[in-house]
Amino acid sequence: MSARSPPSRLKVMNFLNEVAADYPKAISFASGRPAQQFFDVDDWWEAPARFQRHYAEQMGIDTTQAGRLIMQYGRTAGLINTLIAEQLGNDDGVRCQPDQVVVTTGCQEAMALCIRALCASPEDVLLVRDPTYIGATGAADLFGVEVVPLSSAGEDDLCDELREVVTRLAANGRRARALYLIPEFDNPTGRVLTTRCRARLIELCAQTRIAVLEDNPYGMFRFEGESGPTMWTLDHEGVVIYLATYSKTLCPAVRVGCAVVPERLLGDGDGGRELVATLSERKSFLTVNASQTNQAMLGGVLLDSGGSLRRRVGPAIAFYRRNRDVLVDSLERAFGADPRCRWNVPEGGFFLTLQLPFRFLEEDLVACASRYGVIPMPMSYFSFSRANDRIVRLAFSNNDPDAISEGVNRLARFVAERKQEQADEVA
Amino acid sequence: MSARSPPSRLKVMNFLNEVAADYPKAISFASGRPAQQFFDVDDWWEAPARFQRHYAEQMGIDTTQAGRLIMQYGRTAGLINTLIAEQLGNDDGVRCQPDQVVVTTGCQEAMALCIRALCASPEDVLLVRDPTYIGATGAADLFGVEVVPLSSAGEDDLCDELREVVTRLAANGRRARALYLIPEFDNPTGRVLTTRCRARLIELCAQTRIAVLEDNPYGMFRFEGESGPTMWTLDHEGVVIYLATYSKTLCPAVRVGCAVVPERLLGDGDGGRELVATLSERKSFLTVNASQTNQAMLGGVLLDSGGSLRRRVGPAIAFYRRNRDVLVDSLERAFGADPRCRWNVPEGGFFLTLQLPFRFLEEDLVACASRYGVIPMPMSYFSFSRANDRIVRLAFSNNDPDAISEGVNRLARFVAERKQEQADEVA
Repeated sequence: MSARSPPSRLKVMNFLNEVAADYPKAISFASGRPAQQFFDVDDWWEAPARFQRHYAEQMGIDTTQAGRLIMQYGRTAGLINTLIAEQLGNDDGVRCQPDQVVVTTGCQEAMALCIRALCASPEDVLLVRDPTYIGATGAADLFGVEVVPLSSAGEDDLCDELREVVTRLAANGRRARALYLIPEFDNPTGRVLTTRCRARLIELCAQTRIAVLEDNPYGMFRFEGESGPTMWTLDHEGVVIYLATYSKTLCPAVRVGCAVVPERLLGDGDGGRELVATLSERKSFLTVNASQTNQAMLGGVLLDSGGSLRRRVGPAIAFYRRNRDVLVDSLERAFGADPRCRWNVPEGGFFLTLQLPFRFLEEDLVACASRYGVIPMPMSYFSFSRANDRIVRLAFSNNDPDAISEGVNRLARFVAERKQEQADEVA
Repeated sequence: MSARSPPSRLKVMNFLNEVAADYPKAISFASGRPAQQFFDVDDWWEAPARFQRHYAEQMGIDTTQAGRLIMQYGRTAGLINTLIAEQLGNDDGVRCQPDQVVVTTGCQEAMALCIRALCASPEDVLLVRDPTYIGATGAADLFGVEVVPLSSAGEDDLCDELREVVTRLAANGRRARALYLIPEFDNPTGRVLTTRCRARLIELCAQTRIAVLEDNPYGMFRFEGESGPTMWTLDHEGVVIYLATYSKTLCPAVRVGCAVVPERLLGDGDGGRELVATLSERKSFLTVNASQTNQAMLGGVLLDSGGSLRRRVGPAIAFYRRNRDVLVDSLERAFGADPRCRWNVPEGGFFLTLQLPFRFLEEDLVACASRYGVIPMPMSYFSFSRANDRIVRLAFSNNDPDAISEGVNRLARFVAERKQEQADEVA
């Protein structure tokens, strides 16, 4: 447990946006946006009419009537649950019935609603890894839910720490109720949890009655190696709530995501149904039902994709893989000679992390942007402790290869100067 | 202050849906949905490409680039703030700058975010009228904000009660921070606040530092008489936050609404800017930015409407007016002879209320639906007290005239039987 919290996402984003606006020629590794050249905009505009025809057929009504029903208020839990359940089953191994799916206004709303529903009492606590995605900690803050970070980087340590934290919380009259995880190509670390660790965490969470919020925005973007099963697939205890998004696989603007709730939540036969009802009720007070025009757009694209998005993301995967390779090669050239500089080589996703031989904080970001024309993301923005202050996150999803290579060269000049300063100070 | 809270919206909606599903031939006066025959579905599907062309021109980029920016993540406070500000200025007298507008995922999110932001401390209280819209009380519940109802029906009493409640709360260490109102064609009562009362409430709220949340979903639907100024227009104290929706004027599926924040909130020069920042930050943890595909849809429709929706809602107004007339005529025929039956004749909106000579609760609803084939909305669903138990809300927005007339006949048969039972009991 820790004395500090990560800064708020908006403050981080505002600061980054300001820096980017002040230094428009700087190459930014900060943004984890998907590469927008793969958005098929014209197809998006045609997709809702496609869904409208499907919906008319399905309901046995004419397309005018179907269109009017789509444009009306709708079911709080969603309109396209069947299409989503089919795609998640095919692509993520998330086999589920449509009524286990609560369609939300993007995955962020699913996350916020789950945190609010699971951590409903003042003594309830959300567990996260340190560092973690600020969308999760920010949502907890919004509802006044306490967040307790698990700082272990290693998998065995993580399981031990989880057990210890649960015990320590219980001794203080508090209860860990949920554990937020991105098991595949984590944001911000790029790490992947092994199947063994996933299974052990499920077992531990079942024993201690903690729900796992499995967030999987990057799982479809594996460049090489074999994907292990999602935690949902491994779970036979009703521990895992699966959070799905289409913001990275398709596009962020459509803002349709979902939570998939296990039938027997934590072994309770009625628990899943009750959580679906609670999420739907709470959702009705945040955003009513998820936009049916957006559900029609997404529905039209899913219909056209034959129940799987694998083929559609192919070109983006090739682009991200090449970017990852260029980034890793550039890092090797720039920092390979210094054993104090270390980075990981993720087999997919949007991010890797680079450890520097010095702390990299906000003032360094400004120096980097202003004097060297490059913007990395300080890991301190995602972290509860100072243990991650030497690390930066580098996103490789949203730049061209040339920019990546040039960005690393610029970063290398900044690092060389900082190392020289350190050496001068020692001398 | 009161011992009971209204039941949750989802429970109400679930119950109503179940009743409607169990008795599909019943005529429902329960739903305040807009009449869907006025949704121009084909135009909605064409609207985003229209906005895309406009956006390309505005930004000086080609349409492909514009499309990709639209499909990407975007500014948390919104993409089409200028178009919205123009329309609100023209149609509602809500003159504002685009940066005073926070675009949200429907008006419900704006309401929830404002309640969360204004009532941020445990001692902070939201004031509402009794009865009131359950979206407001439900949002307060979601964030653990206490709601205190004002039960006065009369305008002078309302102002006196407001002052008393504020004093009583202060004596208990609590603070009224916001007052939620639908001044024009209130849901559920159909009432309109006079300009005099609006001005007095603004003065009172300025004195007591209470922000008014002015919700105005029905203001555009005036059938006759003159609209007074919105509270926003009357406000020179920075008291009024205006909540806007397009769900009734255009269609509910697009789920774009907004909060408009006064420049000098409660007289504080920085207060407005700070509230915009707070709403945006909190929003980013609920739903990130409001869907840019939906903003493009709405933007395309607003571009096509020349900055005002008045002309577009004309046919719907004529339909609702006719429905109101048919409903009032039917009520007169059915209940005119009994002075204990009373109803109001609103000059616009979607609802009126009917007072019956007996309490009308959930069991009466089931009896009505099952034995008489008609579904009114018990006012108890919106109320904190039993004072409204004899009243039902009748929506006239979503039925044809014939159904309205027949529905009242059925209701009259139910009322006649209940009156007979009462008479038998007395005898």
